[in-house]
Amino acid sequence: MFFASDNSGPVPQAVLDVLAEANQGYTMGYGADPLMDEVRQRIRDLFEAPEAAVYLAATGTAANALALATLVEPFDTVFCTPMAHIEEDECNAPEFYTGGAKLTLVEGSDRMTPEALTRAIESQGNRGVHGPRRGAVSITQVTEMGNVYTLNDLKALCDVAKSYDLPVHLDGARFANAVVALGCTPAEMTWKLGVDVAVFGGTKNGLMGVEAVVFFDPAKAWEFELRRKRGGHLFSKHRYLSAQMAAYLRDDMWRDLAQRANAKAARLHAGMKDHPDVTIVNDVTANMIFFDAPAALHARLKEHGAVYHVSGSDTPRGRFVCDWSMPDEEIDRFVSLLNNG
Amino acid sequence: MFFASDNSGPVPQAVLDVLAEANQGYTMGYGADPLMDEVRQRIRDLFEAPEAAVYLAATGTAANALALATLVEPFDTVFCTPMAHIEEDECNAPEFYTGGAKLTLVEGSDRMTPEALTRAIESQGNRGVHGPRRGAVSITQVTEMGNVYTLNDLKALCDVAKSYDLPVHLDGARFANAVVALGCTPAEMTWKLGVDVAVFGGTKNGLMGVEAVVFFDPAKAWEFELRRKRGGHLFSKHRYLSAQMAAYLRDDMWRDLAQRANAKAARLHAGMKDHPDVTIVNDVTANMIFFDAPAALHARLKEHGAVYHVSGSDTPRGRFVCDWSMPDEEIDRFVSLLNNG
Amino acid sequence: MFFASDNSGPVPQAVLDVLAEANQGYTMGYGADPLMDEVRQRIRDLFEAPEAAVYLAATGTAANALALATLVEPFDTVFCTPMAHIEEDECNAPEFYTGGAKLTLVEGSDRMTPEALTRAIESQGNRGVHGPRRGAVSITQVTEMGNVYTLNDLKALCDVAKSYDLPVHLDGARFANAVVALGCTPAEMTWKLGVDVAVFGGTKNGLMGVEAVVFFDPAKAWEFELRRKRGGHLFSKHRYLSAQMAAYLRDDMWRDLAQRANAKAARLHAGMKDHPDVTIVNDVTANMIFFDAPAALHARLKEHGAVYHVSGSDTPRGRFVCDWSMPDEEIDRFVSLLNNG
Amino acid sequence: MFFASDNSGPVPQAVLDVLAEANQGYTMGYGADPLMDEVRQRIRDLFEAPEAAVYLAATGTAANALALATLVEPFDTVFCTPMAHIEEDECNAPEFYTGGAKLTLVEGSDRMTPEALTRAIESQGNRGVHGPRRGAVSITQVTEMGNVYTLNDLKALCDVAKSYDLPVHLDGARFANAVVALGCTPAEMTWKLGVDVAVFGGTKNGLMGVEAVVFFDPAKAWEFELRRKRGGHLFSKHRYLSAQMAAYLRDDMWRDLAQRANAKAARLHAGMKDHPDVTIVNDVTANMIFFDAPAALHARLKEHGAVYHVSGSDTPRGRFVCDWSMPDEEIDRFVSLLNNG
Repeated sequence: MFFASDNSGPVPQAVLDVLAEANQGYTMGYGADPLMDEVRQRIRDLFEAPEAAVYLAATGTAANALALATLVEPFDTVFCTPMAHIEEDECNAPEFYTGGAKLTLVEGSDRMTPEALTRAIESQGNRGVHGPRRGAVSITQVTEMGNVYTLNDLKALCDVAKSYDLPVHLDGARFANAVVALGCTPAEMTWKLGVDVAVFGGTKNGLMGVEAVVFFDPAKAWEFELRRKRGGHLFSKHRYLSAQMAAYLRDDMWRDLAQRANAKAARLHAGMKDHPDVTIVNDVTANMIFFDAPAALHARLKEHGAVYHVSGSDTPRGRFVCDWSMPDEEIDRFVSLLNNG
Repeated sequence: MFFASDNSGPVPQAVLDVLAEANQGYTMGYGADPLMDEVRQRIRDLFEAPEAAVYLAATGTAANALALATLVEPFDTVFCTPMAHIEEDECNAPEFYTGGAKLTLVEGSDRMTPEALTRAIESQGNRGVHGPRRGAVSITQVTEMGNVYTLNDLKALCDVAKSYDLPVHLDGARFANAVVALGCTPAEMTWKLGVDVAVFGGTKNGLMGVEAVVFFDPAKAWEFELRRKRGGHLFSKHRYLSAQMAAYLRDDMWRDLAQRANAKAARLHAGMKDHPDVTIVNDVTANMIFFDAPAALHARLKEHGAVYHVSGSDTPRGRFVCDWSMPDEEIDRFVSLLNNG
Repeated sequence: MFFASDNSGPVPQAVLDVLAEANQGYTMGYGADPLMDEVRQRIRDLFEAPEAAVYLAATGTAANALALATLVEPFDTVFCTPMAHIEEDECNAPEFYTGGAKLTLVEGSDRMTPEALTRAIESQGNRGVHGPRRGAVSITQVTEMGNVYTLNDLKALCDVAKSYDLPVHLDGARFANAVVALGCTPAEMTWKLGVDVAVFGGTKNGLMGVEAVVFFDPAKAWEFELRRKRGGHLFSKHRYLSAQMAAYLRDDMWRDLAQRANAKAARLHAGMKDHPDVTIVNDVTANMIFFDAPAALHARLKEHGAVYHVSGSDTPRGRFVCDWSMPDEEIDRFVSLLNNG
Repeated sequence: MFFASDNSGPVPQAVLDVLAEANQGYTMGYGADPLMDEVRQRIRDLFEAPEAAVYLAATGTAANALALATLVEPFDTVFCTPMAHIEEDECNAPEFYTGGAKLTLVEGSDRMTPEALTRAIESQGNRGVHGPRRGAVSITQVTEMGNVYTLNDLKALCDVAKSYDLPVHLDGARFANAVVALGCTPAEMTWKLGVDVAVFGGTKNGLMGVEAVVFFDPAKAWEFELRRKRGGHLFSKHRYLSAQMAAYLRDDMWRDLAQRANAKAARLHAGMKDHPDVTIVNDVTANMIFFDAPAALHARLKEHGAVYHVSGSDTPRGRFVCDWSMPDEEIDRFVSLLNNG
């Protein structure tokens, strides 16, 4: 009953298979490998963006920080929520890569609202040289709390950004889970709304460690390449990144894995939601469940082998994250444990 | 006849096998995986350094830059040769990671001499606050030009560094090739001489992309971990880095691969050295050969399928880098082409 | 009726006199001038800190940012209020000088409370490498809203910091105004409470542009000097900074100027506080007054020549800052305008 | 007999007079003072550059580093000589302000030649993402060794830079001395040749601490302003910087002071050049003299009160720097001491 993270499961055999396919003979390094050509083409097709610049990075922190550094100047500020991964979980990587830009936290918690974003933008960039310049808006989809913005939600946020001429970065660590939850296309969730750079995450959705950074306007592509190399994120044997992403794109594996993960969460949710001591606190349409429950209940669940994160002390909040590989039996075992305890 | 780089060959099947072994079930991320425990122990044993702090990074640029950033302050300078990878081939990564430290180039070209190092150190750090403070000495073994410092050579450089209380960083992208060439142990080539931090390279010697950073004094281990995360170089699914390095360490695969690569170079060297138009310009004891030859000769070789880098115009210089996977038949075919052209 | 800023008045003649005194003949640069010896000794005496390291910088932004950069690492976070000058008014200078450290905003607005500071510290530094490390606490006295922490208030904040082993930085742009308001000594407001580095501001209190940075523990003095030079803040003709600070320290000019400025504010406050449409929103014990008043009232005052900042739209808030040079007649003229309008 | 530096003399009384003139009443800060309007207009007129963006900074290190940071990206390299102030004497300030750009040292020593500059540029920027991108060329006039490039020399260097589309920065710490030595106009020595940004130094030529940064193309003016504030180099009481520069520009004080300083050097040179043990090693047309002499001679001169820097050990090299205030009697006393010792 391992529900702690989508970083802890294995990768599908098909990923290993393409790695083996890639492992043949002599190949040019640094992104000049044929599998990267395939990846580039597939992502452009998938996003209906024939001009897009497409790059791979091995970690989400790198993908986000490099994307932001390409969008903003060191004297700028980036607008994000107080719970954003770039604020909470990257040990100052955005500040590092941008050369010291600030993160301005949009009031609220997990979901950014257009009103709060507007207030945050208004609060910055109006003090001449004294405060930071307005830099970019960073949105996370699926959010850190497992919520999924609707396309209208995202559109409203992008519209605010655009009304201030600010570029929009989409942290898509769980991009596929959101696309599946919304039943939309990648294009509909990105450039058609005004997203300028999207991170198309692979790691949390079944790869060993690969994220694609997609610039819909390729104007800053070369700058990104230089920044990636400077950050030590350009792989000499790039084919092994390409291979993972190629596997992910072939036969829509990315969608298949996300469908599975979301379905696991739905199954878990169905089995939990009616428990009298459990309050589900997010909208479970993707692969995460946050729920409040008494400490004693958490203790009992953990004692019987459920592995997940708990935070807070009054009515502690539990977090379940499902990945593609979670066995249905484990879910059912947990549901049984919860309800028949 | 692909001789351009040791970044362009495949990895041994055993690496894929341990990846598959690692790809079982649920595992803690971020370096808390059991294979990393194995790696840590094996490297401590290999280096006879039971206290050493051991970390993995996926690229050599990251490994070097993070190591240096842990050793020096932004107002310091790092002493290296004008041909060092950190100076020539990392797009300012050391300056980035150190927060703007300088690289002071030690006079000469490929091999650092104790005298030139002393002069370089003397030329810096003596102007109070006006110039940078002396920071660290960075030595590359095998050098960029394929030369191997003897243990005495290295000892003399470390002694200079120590006489100024400067820490020593060893860029060991081709660490294994050097150990094999010298017939020494990893400990003899590092901390026993005064090396403080060594990069034990795996990527150029047969892995997909893993380097170990070994701090013989663990005092700054936590700082390194924070810097690695901040740089986006901490892998959530760390087991796939651990697996590669574990494969590399089991049964001394690292040594075996380096022996093969060095032997390939020796075979190539034996077949080239007597050609009247070829002048070998480095000591071929590891896996690289640099040679000067007339442009017409280079042209003929390339025309017939030899792939390698050439630089310079008068008497252009060719570079061959051998990896473990190079077929002997290709070498022999090249030698035949060269000598019977 | 110029009430907008304490950055807009002239300097006392005595400052010009010491500049002229300094302007004699040949003098060593970079801080080795005799007036700096005098300044160093006078500040050590004033702060009862014979070991303190004392430096000058020409701007408050530089003084704060350099002090913080000496206290924290790039992977750390600094705790301050959302209204702190380092957050609001320095265009990312702290992020720049620290190499990308984060500022964590302590909940609340102008005054930091021990409880909120504790919560902020607890919220950071507990996620291993994922979040930033706890770095330092930065307190502003007089606050941005013109409030003065009591010594007990400051003690409680320092105690929280110390309980986490965090160093304390005091942004003392209006240090003298606070000391006068509290009737305490500089030592009582700093190291006796646990402050590690204090900025003893001169610019807002009558100098052309000089702040003293006082490290009560000189261990990092040399690092500060290197960082100051690297930031371009070491003056070759340092005597002209020393001269200003020497003038400020001789005959307690700093105290005299602050007494005047505070008295101006008290006079203004006395004439405003009973006006039915005016609500004073800070404790006027130093040299600043913040007040809410109807837009129409602000408009009338400005129309008749009162110069000051107004922000907000509903019941706009005005800010008056008094400096030593403000003529009493202007104050009285304003009070009359306000009350007899 | 103080010949060590042009940083050690007093400022003309007229500078103090304009400071007193500035010290009247209430004035807007941060560069919005009327004296800055005067300065801006006078510099535009002086440089025949009506569109130029003009800013003040208090130190040369800040002026240079901010100018370079505005011209280049962190992944770029700046071409300068091994003796350039930005390389030798600024404790990594250029690396700091540019966010980690590299300095590529143009072969040679004090004077940059077009051939060496071309070779340096060719050696960089041709390795794709592996090496730094070509960023800017930085030229120092008067050079660190007291030499003055002719307009043709400068033109040739600018032409090389322009042929690679690189912007040119002129470090003009001794700008006025060069203009006087060449008998040209500021425009002829800058934008008419291709200089993009010039630092018009005041500090070494008689001010307390002010340099003007002149961008001939104002496109990046706002970026410079943000960077200046972020660096802590924007003065709240800016009028005291403006006042110094206004004094410097009125009645061509800058030219007058430089003429005096150059004349002092010429007088000194005339009295030294025929001494059999003295070898003058630079072209003395500005205000500096470098000369080789036996150690015993240096010792005798110093013993009798001559103050100046000596470096090297075999035939030690002395450096004299003359400022406007040096008394002719001291020069004559020195010459007499030298020749009649």
